Amino acid sequence: MGTPGRMWSLKPLSIERVTPVPSDIDIALAQVPKNIDVLAEEITLLPAEYDCYGRQKAKVDLSVFDRLRDQEDGYYVLVTGITPTPFGEGKTTTTVGLCQALGAHLNRNTFACLRQPSQGPIFGIKGGAAGGGYSQVIPMVDFNLHLTGDMHAITAANNLLAAQIDTRIYHEKTQSDKGLYNRLVPSKGGKREFSPIQLKRLKKLGINKTNPDDLTPEERESFARLNIDPKSITFNRVIDTSDRFLREITIGEGVLEQRFSRKSQFDITPASEVMAIMALATSLDDLKDRLGKIVIASNLKGEPVTADDLACTGPMIVLLQEAFKPTLMQTLEGTPVFVHCGPFANIAHGCSSIIADKIALKLVGSNGFVVTESGFGADLGMEKFFNIKCRYSGLTPNAVVIVATIRALKSHGGGSIVSLGSPLPDEYTQENLDLVKKGFCNLKKHIENIGKFGLPAIVAINRFKFDTERELLLLRNLCLCNGAAAAVICNHWAEGGEGAVDLAKSVVNACETWKGSFRFLYPLELTIEEKLERIAREIYGAGSVEFSDKAKAKVKLYTAQGFGNLPLCISKTQLSLSHDQSFLGAPVDFKFPVRDIRASVGAGFLYALSGDIMTMTGLNTRPAIYDIDLDTKTGRVIGLF
Amino acid sequence: MGTPGRMWSLKPLSIERVTPVPSDIDIALAQVPKNIDVLAEEITLLPAEYDCYGRQKAKVDLSVFDRLRDQEDGYYVLVTGITPTPFGEGKTTTTVGLCQALGAHLNRNTFACLRQPSQGPIFGIKGGAAGGGYSQVIPMVDFNLHLTGDMHAITAANNLLAAQIDTRIYHEKTQSDKGLYNRLVPSKGGKREFSPIQLKRLKKLGINKTNPDDLTPEERESFARLNIDPKSITFNRVIDTSDRFLREITIGEGVLEQRFSRKSQFDITPASEVMAIMALATSLDDLKDRLGKIVIASNLKGEPVTADDLACTGPMIVLLQEAFKPTLMQTLEGTPVFVHCGPFANIAHGCSSIIADKIALKLVGSNGFVVTESGFGADLGMEKFFNIKCRYSGLTPNAVVIVATIRALKSHGGGSIVSLGSPLPDEYTQENLDLVKKGFCNLKKHIENIGKFGLPAIVAINRFKFDTERELLLLRNLCLCNGAAAAVICNHWAEGGEGAVDLAKSVVNACETWKGSFRFLYPLELTIEEKLERIAREIYGAGSVEFSDKAKAKVKLYTAQGFGNLPLCISKTQLSLSHDQSFLGAPVDFKFPVRDIRASVGAGFLYALSGDIMTMTGLNTRPAIYDIDLDTKTGRVIGLF
Repeated sequence: MGTPGRMWSLKPLSIERVTPVPSDIDIALAQVPKNIDVLAEEITLLPAEYDCYGRQKAKVDLSVFDRLRDQEDGYYVLVTGITPTPFGEGKTTTTVGLCQALGAHLNRNTFACLRQPSQGPIFGIKGGAAGGGYSQVIPMVDFNLHLTGDMHAITAANNLLAAQIDTRIYHEKTQSDKGLYNRLVPSKGGKREFSPIQLKRLKKLGINKTNPDDLTPEERESFARLNIDPKSITFNRVIDTSDRFLREITIGEGVLEQRFSRKSQFDITPASEVMAIMALATSLDDLKDRLGKIVIASNLKGEPVTADDLACTGPMIVLLQEAFKPTLMQTLEGTPVFVHCGPFANIAHGCSSIIADKIALKLVGSNGFVVTESGFGADLGMEKFFNIKCRYSGLTPNAVVIVATIRALKSHGGGSIVSLGSPLPDEYTQENLDLVKKGFCNLKKHIENIGKFGLPAIVAINRFKFDTERELLLLRNLCLCNGAAAAVICNHWAEGGEGAVDLAKSVVNACETWKGSFRFLYPLELTIEEKLERIAREIYGAGSVEFSDKAKAKVKLYTAQGFGNLPLCISKTQLSLSHDQSFLGAPVDFKFPVRDIRASVGAGFLYALSGDIMTMTGLNTRPAIYDIDLDTKTGRVIGLF
Repeated sequence: MGTPGRMWSLKPLSIERVTPVPSDIDIALAQVPKNIDVLAEEITLLPAEYDCYGRQKAKVDLSVFDRLRDQEDGYYVLVTGITPTPFGEGKTTTTVGLCQALGAHLNRNTFACLRQPSQGPIFGIKGGAAGGGYSQVIPMVDFNLHLTGDMHAITAANNLLAAQIDTRIYHEKTQSDKGLYNRLVPSKGGKREFSPIQLKRLKKLGINKTNPDDLTPEERESFARLNIDPKSITFNRVIDTSDRFLREITIGEGVLEQRFSRKSQFDITPASEVMAIMALATSLDDLKDRLGKIVIASNLKGEPVTADDLACTGPMIVLLQEAFKPTLMQTLEGTPVFVHCGPFANIAHGCSSIIADKIALKLVGSNGFVVTESGFGADLGMEKFFNIKCRYSGLTPNAVVIVATIRALKSHGGGSIVSLGSPLPDEYTQENLDLVKKGFCNLKKHIENIGKFGLPAIVAINRFKFDTERELLLLRNLCLCNGAAAAVICNHWAEGGEGAVDLAKSVVNACETWKGSFRFLYPLELTIEEKLERIAREIYGAGSVEFSDKAKAKVKLYTAQGFGNLPLCISKTQLSLSHDQSFLGAPVDFKFPVRDIRASVGAGFLYALSGDIMTMTGLNTRPAIYDIDLDTKTGRVIGLF
């Protein structure tokens, strides 16, 4: 047991609510944030522990964690959601609203830990990701755009490694063993030396020599030739722009590259393994270790080739050093927020960073709360939060808030399909108790799943304007009769923290009184197939798992390469508990197909693909760019939503 | 005449010099910089006028310029160089050393305005660009890497426009006139409206209607169909990584994109027209205007299609808003530096930003100095500084410092070819007065060229370790007998500002006593051919200019499109006064070939290509990445040079 930590002297910001609720950007711009150094002082950061980036953002140094090492952690609360409609059900808004309630209304030390959004979708159809209504992170323009440059740093680090892959293949193809070796270990002023990263490669090869002149010709060749098999390359370039024309490309078609062309693709930056690594690393040393372990391809013998082999580990961590520090911002009501990392929730684990959560848990102290979120529904983000993120962090969560909406339940209950850009069908704008009752099966399954991890489920019923009182009360009762520790109707979108005070009280109560204890769904020692089956059966409700031949071959390969004991990250549609987005509600006994398995060895998981997963978004015919502008007189951004 | 401005109370930092001179990074890390808010206060910035980005960088708000509008400008000094060897001759080092001398030793208000380097070459062979030895900008790691994110913002803005080009072609190809129009002007809650950027397009088309329902079918078609000719696209994607495999690529090969593939390329970020625009814009309104005017292609009728047509102007300026503010840093001796923009010096004009120079000139006041630099030799960077940058800024330069080295003169005098990565031949490490004398013709031509602009030429003889006293004195005398206003041997690399005090005194003297006055080389009213010939004959020494058929066709096209009155930006090798890098010294009467002409309409110039210009760098077999690393214990970067 450490020291308990002390109560912050946080001065909440009051909000002047307007009805009807204005646009997100108008609400955000109407609030005057605290200077970030004021907030930093309120939450007991020392001046040397943060760097301001402008007046409303700061990078927090990892040394805070060392200073507070002996302090007890606060309560650790995850916000997740039911299987969503394409609109999303308001997880971030609920996370922010809950933190405003805990921090500004119940006066508990509280930190929100959020994911940083990609710039790509902001300019498309999705809009901002800083919450919404009176539950937002401010300034929302910064949150949604460059912030403190982390996304760009990740892009740069990823692309340096990607460039070095093709360039190295080129240099190996165009040079003799001798020429290659002499260039890799040049004589400078008559002296030849291996650099430390080259010594690391020698060690991996089992060559126990430090003088470059001592290597045999065979040793020189094995040192200098990575022999990357171009067909096996799995590490792609990334860009943080929605650019569908980069989904399938051919690179290296120039004469200068001797037309060593190959098919390739750009992914959007959150899909980079570097992003997943940043989110999962527990220290700077761990970050460096994980970066070096990234497997980018196999060599011609089928052995993994890593970022270390390509000498990219050092420059990558240099590029990422600042980005590895969480960014401090605030909610509309002046409570603290960490924004840090935003990996995909399909091919990656979809959670904000371990390092931000760890620092926040120390800062809030033993009676405080850290509320963090995970992507998509509880079958995806939450399962991965527990089995991947918590496994690597060693942190123990205390409660789960699951966000549900009447709209999503109606969809699961058999309502017409809803889609972005089309008007809502009538059953969604009029009372329909039957659809709510039928659709509850989806939420029920998620509540049961939360129980499998040993934690209390608190349902946050996120109120929308068409919801009727009878629908809301019906849903609450269904939750309470089906295993939820609490179920609370909340209205934080329209009312800010005040609209989530009841939810906050339920969270406090659950954390302080729950008797269960957290457990993983599976031990790492299971085989890859067993782990996959455990997740598909227990969490999704599948009857069996079907492995394609390709997937079977990969199971063999990764087991042989020694990666069989990594946790599993499943990439499937977020719109169903199953692999098929047309299976709404709570499907059972379906065959869950595994098309392929890939490895993010640096991040520390294998990922299994159950369908085609898009790793690059696109712009629609009339994207949000038509509305976005800058008022050059005032410097105000217009049209971000 | 405005108010004169007051003397700063600047406290220089003292440097503890070590012999032999340590590596750049060791020197940089041994100095403790002032907190940037201290420096900001010293140079009379108000607290509301800057935002700190960490402790050692700040973004300076454009409002400073408005506050000081009535203040007289300081002296405006350009640092340029003779035709360089591939090593470069030390322009940035001289700029920094000169400013250290002026600011920290002569106690004159002095600002250095520098270009931000690309991250690409940093990881290759070139190393850092923050100066060198005891004349550097600190912190050098920040300077060379992300800085305050400007380069990334430019990448993002460029690539949003690039993505929208192909996406728009795709949407036009796959939709009917009606479908396209209805999607571009959707009905929201029964209401249809054009957005402001759409109204701008209607105006351009001469359609004087504001109700979407009122347009005729023909008007709808001409509004909705940009009919971009894919073969005419000149706007490329960019990335700030040396990635030669992106030099020639095919994009859009996916089934989802219906395989509407085309050949394309990535350039490195400094080659983006957006970079040139940022450097040339004189205000936020001017920036927006220039972004909107970017011509990305022609339509099928041969008319220019712009960023405005693609609705990208608003989001681009939103992405660039912060990046348009110059970044304040400091020299090793604690004098102020603006780092802002870094366009290529071949296909663009190669100068740091107008806005930084303008703000700096106000801050130093009438007795102060702003020292700015331009890329490559005086035939490229300086000519463009005058004819493009000064034309758009309206600023009048007072003097030119031209950097020369014994090494480069020997190379122009017939010494063996020097190249990166090879040891220097003997004639460069031993005294050789004859080669210096012969090679002087190159410097002489540049001195004459400076005179053509009406300005005094001060030769900064940048001392290197192999130079003998006799060589240096010979060169000084040659300069003084051939039109230089002054010629000074300087040793700022080894001695910091102290080593450039004599140079600084000569600069002060030239600025305060020179009787000539600045003039352009050509008026804009000349035809494209005439402007090109003026530059080639007067500056390069060409006897004639030879236009390819392609170039002739472009002259016709751009004249017809109304771009004939733009200034000219010539893209040629920097290693010769001519187009051919084997013509060293001062070649005369050669035929200068113009292979192609292209337009950067937003930036405001046409650029003529005289040879193959590489717009994407590559990594060599053993790039600098092998040496770069982070000490995770201390957070120190290792191996940047």
